[in-house]
Amino acid sequence: MAKSRVAKARDEANNPSSKVVRFGSDKPLQLAAGVTLSPFQVAYQTYGELNADKSNAILICHALTGDQHVANQHPVTGKPGWWEALVGPGKVIDTDRFFVICSNVIGSCLGSTGPASANEETGQAYGLGLPVITIKDMVRAQAMLVEYLGIERLFSVVGGSMGGMQVLEWAASYPERVNTAVPIATGARHTAQNIAFHEVGRQAVMADPDWRGGAYLKDGRHPGKGLAVARMAAHITYLSEPALHRKFGRNLQDRDQPTFGFDADFQIESYLRHQGITFVDRFDANSYLYLTRAMDYFDLASEHGGLLSRAFKGTKTRFCVVSFTSDWLFPTEESRMVVHALNAAGASVSFVEIETDRGHDAFLLDEPEFHAAIDGFLKAAARNAGLI
Amino acid sequence: MAKSRVAKARDEANNPSSKVVRFGSDKPLQLAAGVTLSPFQVAYQTYGELNADKSNAILICHALTGDQHVANQHPVTGKPGWWEALVGPGKVIDTDRFFVICSNVIGSCLGSTGPASANEETGQAYGLGLPVITIKDMVRAQAMLVEYLGIERLFSVVGGSMGGMQVLEWAASYPERVNTAVPIATGARHTAQNIAFHEVGRQAVMADPDWRGGAYLKDGRHPGKGLAVARMAAHITYLSEPALHRKFGRNLQDRDQPTFGFDADFQIESYLRHQGITFVDRFDANSYLYLTRAMDYFDLASEHGGLLSRAFKGTKTRFCVVSFTSDWLFPTEESRMVVHALNAAGASVSFVEIETDRGHDAFLLDEPEFHAAIDGFLKAAARNAGLI
Repeated sequence: MAKSRVAKARDEANNPSSKVVRFGSDKPLQLAAGVTLSPFQVAYQTYGELNADKSNAILICHALTGDQHVANQHPVTGKPGWWEALVGPGKVIDTDRFFVICSNVIGSCLGSTGPASANEETGQAYGLGLPVITIKDMVRAQAMLVEYLGIERLFSVVGGSMGGMQVLEWAASYPERVNTAVPIATGARHTAQNIAFHEVGRQAVMADPDWRGGAYLKDGRHPGKGLAVARMAAHITYLSEPALHRKFGRNLQDRDQPTFGFDADFQIESYLRHQGITFVDRFDANSYLYLTRAMDYFDLASEHGGLLSRAFKGTKTRFCVVSFTSDWLFPTEESRMVVHALNAAGASVSFVEIETDRGHDAFLLDEPEFHAAIDGFLKAAARNAGLI
Repeated sequence: MAKSRVAKARDEANNPSSKVVRFGSDKPLQLAAGVTLSPFQVAYQTYGELNADKSNAILICHALTGDQHVANQHPVTGKPGWWEALVGPGKVIDTDRFFVICSNVIGSCLGSTGPASANEETGQAYGLGLPVITIKDMVRAQAMLVEYLGIERLFSVVGGSMGGMQVLEWAASYPERVNTAVPIATGARHTAQNIAFHEVGRQAVMADPDWRGGAYLKDGRHPGKGLAVARMAAHITYLSEPALHRKFGRNLQDRDQPTFGFDADFQIESYLRHQGITFVDRFDANSYLYLTRAMDYFDLASEHGGLLSRAFKGTKTRFCVVSFTSDWLFPTEESRMVVHALNAAGASVSFVEIETDRGHDAFLLDEPEFHAAIDGFLKAAARNAGLI
């Protein structure tokens, strides 16, 4: 019998089909929460070949519900990689030219240590026993992976949304190891409104009786209803009102007249329910709590005495900051704050605002102007670095 | 022992402390869903005195989670009336001069017939047995109340948000009975994004196992966790990002350092949780489903062949349309569509956009420019009508 998606997702959490590097007790992960995580593992995918002087590596950082499967079929859903529009042979992030790495973030559920991973001390899933993870912790684990791969300096670090937070953290924490940085549709801190939406999602998960204080895995349960509600609420914030209007408007499902009931009568309702349902099959509810929390705690300025420009003082990294006009989760204003800080720090920075009605999700979609901007920036940097 | 809020709320649903008019089987309510509701009752409050020629009546229409307690202490929460900033002796809607009426909408839970009301045929609460209610149905019931009060023509119909939808419906359905109309922070249709947020709220309620397919009252239960999540999500949409930033920012609760946990660490989290918790004590979960659905189905143009201006053809009603700059639930663009339709219909219309960062909720708050605009409009109309 074919395995269910849920069963596949649980396998991937502990026995991923990706490559894995395991750091033992000699290499604990120092967490911002003041404790260490040890042992821990990082699951990752690579594409292309590392060149002889190890100067062509690009690290891609994934978003909240993303994973390391950037440009290959997803092991649980069977869908194409989440960034195949941008990454692959001959594409903007050209795997014929670059060695592309993407690791599952710590706290997630696709093979890197997270709340669904077995705690060796108990033999049970960590659940809420895992310490809270921050963006800095994710990046520290990635830095250990990059070191393990023998790469001293990354040609580029690229990512959108939560991935963009990691890009900024990389540039701030390891400036000498980052040649270029491309933070997309992101910000240097999570705003009050964004924290609010995340809190709604967490409360939806925690309100589900199947959540059981986070200990659902040992009972073979999953708070799917709560997680679906969380996903539905979040999904609205990834889109835009104009795009929703254009795509769905007030159209009814396969009929002319409303049913005057509580079934999904409008197309937008059916679409949202589908988003909720398909998400819970592939994602761990506790990971959703941990990763939303990591984003909430992100505030790069506060790590540097409250002054964002200090995070980038003396940096030699070249930046390309990208925002989208209809993104109301990370509006252009948040990117502009990053750009101002980089300017104040004397950094080399390009800033591109892409006109689109597709909202925050635009960074995942086929947006020609966006792709052209990344292409131009990377090509110029590659020429500069003697890679082309 | 003092009654709990929940017990008080349940009393109010069937035995309200407000005045009540009961319409028997000779006066059924024709519903848009194609069925009738009979018998049914409307609970209402009045303030001030009706003058001799019955020309000084103002009907106030309440919003989704509002009620008839505009300017008196709330029977369940003990709080002041929800629009005391605007309504009362000597205030903008001056109860020394006007006879102010506000009725609980059909489908709500403060004494007008709704899902928590006892169905006489079964002796049990209607629950989901109540037909779906629309904005037009609410207005039809209000029109029956106004007729019962012996008032042929209202000096004004005023309301914000869902109340504003009722104002527009009043003006379209009973133009000869509406002297002036003041739709505030509203639109002539619910947008796809707004339907989406409502659907998230409904799914949160329905995901709560205590909802029991809507039949929770007979088991003495209430899907409070789901309803709290719904309220939290909705509450974000009533505010604005700048106001949240100004009020809460990333401030932590009574401490300098984060706890790195899942308790309410940020002030915004604590505030939102409080909004959720206090709401469930005073509001019926099924009513929340019915009233959000009524808003979703509202599309005044579609009732008039798809052309909004037709809804107001030949109207003699004078309109004052109000929007708020930071309202992203009913942005100014939605009001502007109403104004354009009114202009196309040759109606008399003033349009005021109020500059504020307080979002949709601004209509409930002490906003001097907003109050001045309503004051000016009503005074001019009262002079015109010989009332002052």
